[in-house]
Amino acid sequence: MEKIKVGIIGAGGYGGCGAIELLHNHPHAEIAALIDKQDVGKPISDLYPHLTGFCDLPIISPDDPDCPDDFQVVFFATPDGVGQNAAPSWLKKGAKVVDYSGDFRFNDLHTYKGYAARIGRTQDHSSPDLLPQSVYGLTELHRSEISRSSLVGNPGCFAVSCILGLSPAIKSKIIEEDSIICDAKTGVSGAGKNPTPAFHYPARYDAMNAYKISGHQHVYEVERELGLLADHDIRITFTPHVVPLCRGILTTIYAQLGAGQNLKSVEEVYQSFYKDDVFVRVFGPEKPQVSVNVRGSNFCNISLNVDERTGKLIVVSLVDNLVKGQAGSAVQNMNIMFGLEETTGLLHPGIYP
Amino acid sequence: MEKIKVGIIGAGGYGGCGAIELLHNHPHAEIAALIDKQDVGKPISDLYPHLTGFCDLPIISPDDPDCPDDFQVVFFATPDGVGQNAAPSWLKKGAKVVDYSGDFRFNDLHTYKGYAARIGRTQDHSSPDLLPQSVYGLTELHRSEISRSSLVGNPGCFAVSCILGLSPAIKSKIIEEDSIICDAKTGVSGAGKNPTPAFHYPARYDAMNAYKISGHQHVYEVERELGLLADHDIRITFTPHVVPLCRGILTTIYAQLGAGQNLKSVEEVYQSFYKDDVFVRVFGPEKPQVSVNVRGSNFCNISLNVDERTGKLIVVSLVDNLVKGQAGSAVQNMNIMFGLEETTGLLHPGIYP
Amino acid sequence: MEKIKVGIIGAGGYGGCGAIELLHNHPHAEIAALIDKQDVGKPISDLYPHLTGFCDLPIISPDDPDCPDDFQVVFFATPDGVGQNAAPSWLKKGAKVVDYSGDFRFNDLHTYKGYAARIGRTQDHSSPDLLPQSVYGLTELHRSEISRSSLVGNPGCFAVSCILGLSPAIKSKIIEEDSIICDAKTGVSGAGKNPTPAFHYPARYDAMNAYKISGHQHVYEVERELGLLADHDIRITFTPHVVPLCRGILTTIYAQLGAGQNLKSVEEVYQSFYKDDVFVRVFGPEKPQVSVNVRGSNFCNISLNVDERTGKLIVVSLVDNLVKGQAGSAVQNMNIMFGLEETTGLLHPGIYP
Amino acid sequence: MEKIKVGIIGAGGYGGCGAIELLHNHPHAEIAALIDKQDVGKPISDLYPHLTGFCDLPIISPDDPDCPDDFQVVFFATPDGVGQNAAPSWLKKGAKVVDYSGDFRFNDLHTYKGYAARIGRTQDHSSPDLLPQSVYGLTELHRSEISRSSLVGNPGCFAVSCILGLSPAIKSKIIEEDSIICDAKTGVSGAGKNPTPAFHYPARYDAMNAYKISGHQHVYEVERELGLLADHDIRITFTPHVVPLCRGILTTIYAQLGAGQNLKSVEEVYQSFYKDDVFVRVFGPEKPQVSVNVRGSNFCNISLNVDERTGKLIVVSLVDNLVKGQAGSAVQNMNIMFGLEETTGLLHPGIYP
Repeated sequence: MEKIKVGIIGAGGYGGCGAIELLHNHPHAEIAALIDKQDVGKPISDLYPHLTGFCDLPIISPDDPDCPDDFQVVFFATPDGVGQNAAPSWLKKGAKVVDYSGDFRFNDLHTYKGYAARIGRTQDHSSPDLLPQSVYGLTELHRSEISRSSLVGNPGCFAVSCILGLSPAIKSKIIEEDSIICDAKTGVSGAGKNPTPAFHYPARYDAMNAYKISGHQHVYEVERELGLLADHDIRITFTPHVVPLCRGILTTIYAQLGAGQNLKSVEEVYQSFYKDDVFVRVFGPEKPQVSVNVRGSNFCNISLNVDERTGKLIVVSLVDNLVKGQAGSAVQNMNIMFGLEETTGLLHPGIYP
Repeated sequence: MEKIKVGIIGAGGYGGCGAIELLHNHPHAEIAALIDKQDVGKPISDLYPHLTGFCDLPIISPDDPDCPDDFQVVFFATPDGVGQNAAPSWLKKGAKVVDYSGDFRFNDLHTYKGYAARIGRTQDHSSPDLLPQSVYGLTELHRSEISRSSLVGNPGCFAVSCILGLSPAIKSKIIEEDSIICDAKTGVSGAGKNPTPAFHYPARYDAMNAYKISGHQHVYEVERELGLLADHDIRITFTPHVVPLCRGILTTIYAQLGAGQNLKSVEEVYQSFYKDDVFVRVFGPEKPQVSVNVRGSNFCNISLNVDERTGKLIVVSLVDNLVKGQAGSAVQNMNIMFGLEETTGLLHPGIYP
Repeated sequence: MEKIKVGIIGAGGYGGCGAIELLHNHPHAEIAALIDKQDVGKPISDLYPHLTGFCDLPIISPDDPDCPDDFQVVFFATPDGVGQNAAPSWLKKGAKVVDYSGDFRFNDLHTYKGYAARIGRTQDHSSPDLLPQSVYGLTELHRSEISRSSLVGNPGCFAVSCILGLSPAIKSKIIEEDSIICDAKTGVSGAGKNPTPAFHYPARYDAMNAYKISGHQHVYEVERELGLLADHDIRITFTPHVVPLCRGILTTIYAQLGAGQNLKSVEEVYQSFYKDDVFVRVFGPEKPQVSVNVRGSNFCNISLNVDERTGKLIVVSLVDNLVKGQAGSAVQNMNIMFGLEETTGLLHPGIYP
Repeated sequence: MEKIKVGIIGAGGYGGCGAIELLHNHPHAEIAALIDKQDVGKPISDLYPHLTGFCDLPIISPDDPDCPDDFQVVFFATPDGVGQNAAPSWLKKGAKVVDYSGDFRFNDLHTYKGYAARIGRTQDHSSPDLLPQSVYGLTELHRSEISRSSLVGNPGCFAVSCILGLSPAIKSKIIEEDSIICDAKTGVSGAGKNPTPAFHYPARYDAMNAYKISGHQHVYEVERELGLLADHDIRITFTPHVVPLCRGILTTIYAQLGAGQNLKSVEEVYQSFYKDDVFVRVFGPEKPQVSVNVRGSNFCNISLNVDERTGKLIVVSLVDNLVKGQAGSAVQNMNIMFGLEETTGLLHPGIYP
């Protein structure tokens, strides 16, 4: 089998680096070009010296007339607004597209506009006609649509942990929907490669904080997906926090259990929901749930707990924000889009400690 | 004025060390003896070399017949079960007592027994007759009783952040009491000085986790104090997490706002409640709330936020677990018990970064 | 080709975990049994939950009569004293042996005794007759002997960085041999899995220190190997330090350059010496040398610098102490002992950030 | 006694923040104005929220005509080139000056020019006539001159640790002067407040590196001061490293011991040299030397060791780069310039853990 040629746009960021690491190990895909507007001409291994000898491709400008374009799939590891401009031309050339941003996470214009307003984006979507054919790239929920699609909106990192942590409960209607609170803690790598005062080592090494309280943009896709599962609108309270570690999102999800539910019934619901999903591991309350357990891997660990005193279901949902929360999901989606085994190139445990 | 002589029992732990640091700067108190069962005979500065030249007192065994006993106040920086045994003899000698553990946090035996059951303590309280005269040592709530008491049960670190974050709302009845969720994140120093596998550097530097989900013992004193404010029982959901930093507790508190309440009315309630409390700083939602802002100081920072979409009040409450959450509260209580200005020896900002 | 069956003794430590991670990816080897005296009966994935689904073998006691013994190779991921007792019986059964400790790093009894004295070991070596057939397992120096040997003493982590950083200079006689100083900085994982006061998170997160100044045991094997290259005794000054990170050794090596030497001549010597060594990457002075560049990989990065003002050669030598400094070298040696390509299962870049 | 009015120029950086923290506790000094070109108009407690209630002065532009100028002393917490321009006008107004940069660390133009060349500074010194009256602000070496001076060049952080670690040995001629190697490890705060890619949390949390190998500018002042003590030129090899912690410099100093010297004679030399220096603590080899022992304090801890095998003196010298290495030295110098007790406002142990 000839290898799938992958072009990565926005290759110089953590999202590009993560895709390179994963595709290096992938038996049926290869990196065809690394495209970015910054650091043009430099080998990627200058930016990421651990890649020396593994991937030394130079970064090409998207404006370079010699920029190759014979890819079977393009990863847009770029911020909002980039993929929606460039996707049409790539699709026309026959490439499939996986976009990391919010550009194609909502398959109707109305919902996208609500999202766009939240992130302060005032321009219209530049490819609104593509939205209906885009698929939300959380594989566990949309595997079949992804397999038939050429355009996938890769999910947000927080959203992955929230949606995987809540979907079985919503689908099976075992919780009170208006009682959902997601308290998320993320490592710093989620903020990307560019240095900022808040993530300067001395400011961060012994510091944690809440931010965008009640206002983070990922809440939109969480509510969207939960709404699709429930078949009506759902609103959640979501508060993100940054803690001083590098990789990992731990979301603690609270919801009032419905009448007659208990830990056992909850476990059955979750085990059943994820019975065919290799990358979701469901644990009971006795299991430790430490973020490092999923570091460097494409797994989501879910721990189920019930507070008998208050009748609350408490789900702890863990992902590595750079793998299952980003590049890993992108490769998982690529596998499905090309008819490969979903786990190809993704079955490794990470390293510890 | 002669200096208050302070004896510290359990001096070798972080709680003892914190008291030494604070009392070194205190103009009206001095350390008379450092008592512990471990490291007997060693100067404290062998255990904590930063104290070299500041406090080089040797550690004395509590069983040493030459152990001095002419203290005006004794700090029990000890685990549950120690203070309740020894407090009577110290009180008889005329010393006042501040106990860091749960031994004297509940001034009736029935409530204590509920707490004891939760921590798996099977022995009876050894000084049940002392309980009625003990006072819960959260200064902001019990200042006047503390000033008249000789026996104070210093509050738990998580409890300080929860209770200070919730008291105004409970007192003013502006939230739905059965909707309260406290999601707490603590630095590792809260677990004390003794090394454990979970807090070994390689296991912790890039790892966070939830623990004692729905089962942490501090929930008892939070519910107790909130119940006293509300004049009836209150139940909360409380989940603690450990994140890889040293000092700081950040508790994110969620509660459904009552009818007619909004951010402005909430701010008035909190500002009014804490108008005379130097160590509680109330901020609006625009202010950054980073744990390092209170590191090394006796302050509690409270940030008030309202999620308009879900009608939730979201309070972020920050303390340094080793200062306002432990030794700082002990000194604050001592000041009040001896008629000193409450802030004596405690007004410093910590160091940054 | 049938897979090589590997038994790991001392499987529960970081050295065992590292071998499992590497062998999971190895196309021609498989783990046959995990043997340890602690945590007997538990699946290894209870100790290391990131291995869940990848390796769930239970830990077997070495004293268990049902402990399997049909291995082609045994890794002793154990402290000094274990391998020397057990190796003979494994060798008799036809297994090859790679020992992580100092037990087989010295192929004559006299040298071993000097080493043993330094680590305070008073017992005699229990298999002195095996010493002459043992080989020091730094592949780059002893590749050919390793390929013919059944008994390899895997090198110490500090020693790997020092010896690889110095060998070309010693071999080519371009430095003054009595001027060598190795200043080594290690992450905390080098101290293993067991918690200690010095590596308790709160004691370590913002703390670095020197230790065993002039007395670390790895100096013996460094001097031994350098002496073999020089054909006479060499003494070095070596000081290890612990810094608050998890993986990585950075050794800064100082030596007076010989007459007529300069940066260019030094680079030629090093490039030439390592021209066939995939896992050693030689860089000039302009290249950043950051420990994370080798994290999780089997590479040693060497940066060459000359201080013109003082005539000093300054070599910065980087390894991941748990890979090239431990389990990676073990697998590299295994590959060679079994006639496999040296890089089998080892060619991956690690993950970043 | 009226309080000394201190103006801080460059107040918004870590060096300004450190001075504010120290002067807040100083009984005889007060902050009169905070001057900076950035963040003009903002209260300093917006930049450093831990100062809220302690120092809320707004930042004033140096170009503001209403900028106060009635200071008794001005701290230039500014980079090279600022103090040399502005110092003359402040001195004329009668203020004393302490400059944190290299502008006044060399009291003759020739030496300054050598330094300037190294840092790539091409402009001439703008106040060359002031150089002869400037004093190098390492109190322990120049106490008496500082007491008579109005212009002090505060020492560099690395230089403090190197010079204090070497001065007794140089002065007493107990080492071979051409054998000196200083291997320094610093926390990240030494690089200041501005975020950079190398100090972005994800890039730094698990990463250490050497930098400016053989080329750091502090080597000039170290050689200058050692040369003054020896009465002839001295050259050293100096390599700085960055490790992932916030505060602290640990310099490991190597030098060949002279004939007849041993640990005991070395200890006598050091103890004698520093017998009147409160802020230098000399320890023997058995003492732990952990950077956190001096964190937040103005102390320099020195540990003396001899490697009997190679005849090397190994001195471990520890300072907090932001206190003894910066703001603490500035306050110490101010105390002396104003005839105060040298330790005023500086005698506290820091906090632990």
